[in-house]
Amino acid sequence: MKKNVFGFLLLLASLSHAQNKDEQMLKDMYKFSLTQSQCYSWLDDLSNKVGQRMSGSAGAEKGIAYAKAKLETLGLDRVYLQEVMVPKWVRGEKEMAYILDNKTKINVPICALGGSVATAKNGLTAEVIEVHGIDELKALGAAKVKGKIVFYNRPFEPENVDAFKSYGNCVDQRYYGAKEAAALGASGTIVRSMNFRLDDFPHTGAQSYGDLPKEQWIPTAAISTNGAELLSQKLKSNPKLQFFMKMSCQQYEDVLSYNVIGEITGSVHPEKIMVVGGHLDSWDLADGSQDDGAGVVQSMEVLELFKKLNYKPRNTIRAVLFMNEEFGGKGGKKYEELSKLNNENHIFALESDAGGFSPRGFSFECDELNFTKVLSWKNLFEPYLIHNFVKDHTGSDIAHLTSKKIVKAGLLPDSQRYFDYHHAANDKFDAVNKRELELGAATMASLVYLFDQYGID
Amino acid sequence: MKKNVFGFLLLLASLSHAQNKDEQMLKDMYKFSLTQSQCYSWLDDLSNKVGQRMSGSAGAEKGIAYAKAKLETLGLDRVYLQEVMVPKWVRGEKEMAYILDNKTKINVPICALGGSVATAKNGLTAEVIEVHGIDELKALGAAKVKGKIVFYNRPFEPENVDAFKSYGNCVDQRYYGAKEAAALGASGTIVRSMNFRLDDFPHTGAQSYGDLPKEQWIPTAAISTNGAELLSQKLKSNPKLQFFMKMSCQQYEDVLSYNVIGEITGSVHPEKIMVVGGHLDSWDLADGSQDDGAGVVQSMEVLELFKKLNYKPRNTIRAVLFMNEEFGGKGGKKYEELSKLNNENHIFALESDAGGFSPRGFSFECDELNFTKVLSWKNLFEPYLIHNFVKDHTGSDIAHLTSKKIVKAGLLPDSQRYFDYHHAANDKFDAVNKRELELGAATMASLVYLFDQYGID
Repeated sequence: MKKNVFGFLLLLASLSHAQNKDEQMLKDMYKFSLTQSQCYSWLDDLSNKVGQRMSGSAGAEKGIAYAKAKLETLGLDRVYLQEVMVPKWVRGEKEMAYILDNKTKINVPICALGGSVATAKNGLTAEVIEVHGIDELKALGAAKVKGKIVFYNRPFEPENVDAFKSYGNCVDQRYYGAKEAAALGASGTIVRSMNFRLDDFPHTGAQSYGDLPKEQWIPTAAISTNGAELLSQKLKSNPKLQFFMKMSCQQYEDVLSYNVIGEITGSVHPEKIMVVGGHLDSWDLADGSQDDGAGVVQSMEVLELFKKLNYKPRNTIRAVLFMNEEFGGKGGKKYEELSKLNNENHIFALESDAGGFSPRGFSFECDELNFTKVLSWKNLFEPYLIHNFVKDHTGSDIAHLTSKKIVKAGLLPDSQRYFDYHHAANDKFDAVNKRELELGAATMASLVYLFDQYGID
Repeated sequence: MKKNVFGFLLLLASLSHAQNKDEQMLKDMYKFSLTQSQCYSWLDDLSNKVGQRMSGSAGAEKGIAYAKAKLETLGLDRVYLQEVMVPKWVRGEKEMAYILDNKTKINVPICALGGSVATAKNGLTAEVIEVHGIDELKALGAAKVKGKIVFYNRPFEPENVDAFKSYGNCVDQRYYGAKEAAALGASGTIVRSMNFRLDDFPHTGAQSYGDLPKEQWIPTAAISTNGAELLSQKLKSNPKLQFFMKMSCQQYEDVLSYNVIGEITGSVHPEKIMVVGGHLDSWDLADGSQDDGAGVVQSMEVLELFKKLNYKPRNTIRAVLFMNEEFGGKGGKKYEELSKLNNENHIFALESDAGGFSPRGFSFECDELNFTKVLSWKNLFEPYLIHNFVKDHTGSDIAHLTSKKIVKAGLLPDSQRYFDYHHAANDKFDAVNKRELELGAATMASLVYLFDQYGID
């Protein structure tokens, strides 16, 4: 009995020692991140020196070179590029659009959606039919749609606390809108920008013509929320008004690009790989400081934190800066393809692609056993106001990593302001707060550390 | 036994019914706030139509009239003003300052601190002595300080997760800096702005000469963080450089002003009062949209939510928009004075004076029994990502309410960006996000509702 008590006390002492060690490690990481980390100055460079990093563009190549060079300063075990062919789509001249209400022209801000075809050189002029979703469009039928510009105007649902839920419930209009309208003979589409706010920024984003024959593809653009409100109002008094839009975008052949990878080799299990990542490409309208410059520099910061705090991970930790998340997801797919080819064993992946706002928690894709383990770490995060641990979608670049045993996680920053900037010309450096970015990096490093110490076998 | 089981089941059923009822009420309040509330448009008015509301100014009077008029549209049981005499201090002409390094003049942004005396008409020119706190100043002694401008340059501690902790550990330089320097014969003081960021905004704020005789009062100003960095750097190469500052601020006699109050009479306990409040006055450099326009419109929104959702509170709910929080706290003191005079019974008070950012939780000042009760409501707040319930300081306007039984609470929004705007010229309407403001209002209303239903007896 005495022995048992002694054993129990030893176990308690050892658990308490581990808890203290972990508390201290998290404390050190948050402190370093808030006082000495480079992530904010990296983001400054990436946003203000490199600029937009649209996949297939010269900007993306500059971004690749920059990130590789910075990773090489961190004293990692390996920094390398991974070849990937990516689509190259170019917006061309700035788009132009106006409402033609009798003889009055009212300019409205639009931008082509990714992959859209151009209008004719002298633009497209047509009557407008407003709908609030694809179902409503289909119910109208071809007779009422033919030749017209379909105007998708279902707004974000304001009542969701999670802004991504509103996005998820709205984005089908943008992604499939042109395909569905074209199938009914429309001449073009415009979609209300994916944004809560009433403002003057059109928000671009991916769309797909699906398997529609190329000759049926129609020009498709986003209109600012203020523009959408105005158009809807004008249509009420004059359903016969016309809309003019001119776009000169063009699709080129795929071009060679790269994922950028930096890694620290595991001291105990070099063959077990933990990924932390974000995407290096942005849209072309701005620097993409929130989407996803933030995730890129936070992922790099995880490696800096481990090196500077002299933490030698048990497993291999790899920062992967994915290319082409925005418009094809080719980098993520290529990463998984090569990982399979090389028989790599991924045990963990964490993505940051929801902005550099105050971190609130993580989403997880994993089995119940691992989720229970994760929940046991919650108290370690509470001093940093990280409370939200949920099972949910984690990230589109790590979506392709599908081994049975892997635990996947997504950083969940505060979501309220994300869509104010998402895919728009105001997604610039000044949209990111230094401390919020740094807190996010430390939060990511903390989870990676805990998984490295106590994660799945 | 059977009876006991039945009784137990009844109790369970009734608890579950209450829980469902509360869940639904919170859901309704958050939904209304995010979809139909007026608080954001009130803030627009208060910021962009009324403008700055420095206590004792015409702007403050406009703010009082505006708030009263809006409260009167809500169908409350009572809307009234409460007289209070407040200090009137006027900044005068825009301040001017430069570093005189040999013959080179380098302009730097400063602003007078509240209550500062003016410089001589042709300004003040003197050598500068840099210190990092009052202790360091005192250790220098009068001989090294006499005639000089004391430059307090201790920065915010970046490592604190709670930005208010950094403020609390730094603000003594601003509040007592002039008094302490004057006592040692300094000719003036400048203090590094209370802000994490390096930027060009000087941040004003209250200061006090304490019981120092009036003839010893010296001009005191804040310098922007960039200005402070520059001055410190220049001092390293030229400790004999001079600093020029010119300020024409002036103190007038106290003037009559008002707290604005709106209330719904309690249906069961009209004599028990629950206060929800923010302060209507701002500094003079901007609209004070975060500090504390947000708290004002959120407090008004609590009443709107109850009225629009047809909730008839058991206790009297009173929104109090306090005057003169920033520079004297006369409104809060007067409120308590009159409440004592009228033998009012305050059971609860909630203040919002930490910005209109995403709400994270509440601080509480109460006994353990009540805190335990509060913690039992946490699960109701989790769907809205409200997790942070702590015992801490709640608010300076309700600080004077000190009855033994009262429970006091402060809304805790995310604190990271608050000091980017606090008391500076950029504290304007566009610093506030609509959804974050609305979530804060619903969070306040939820706590008031729960206290009204289940609060202390």
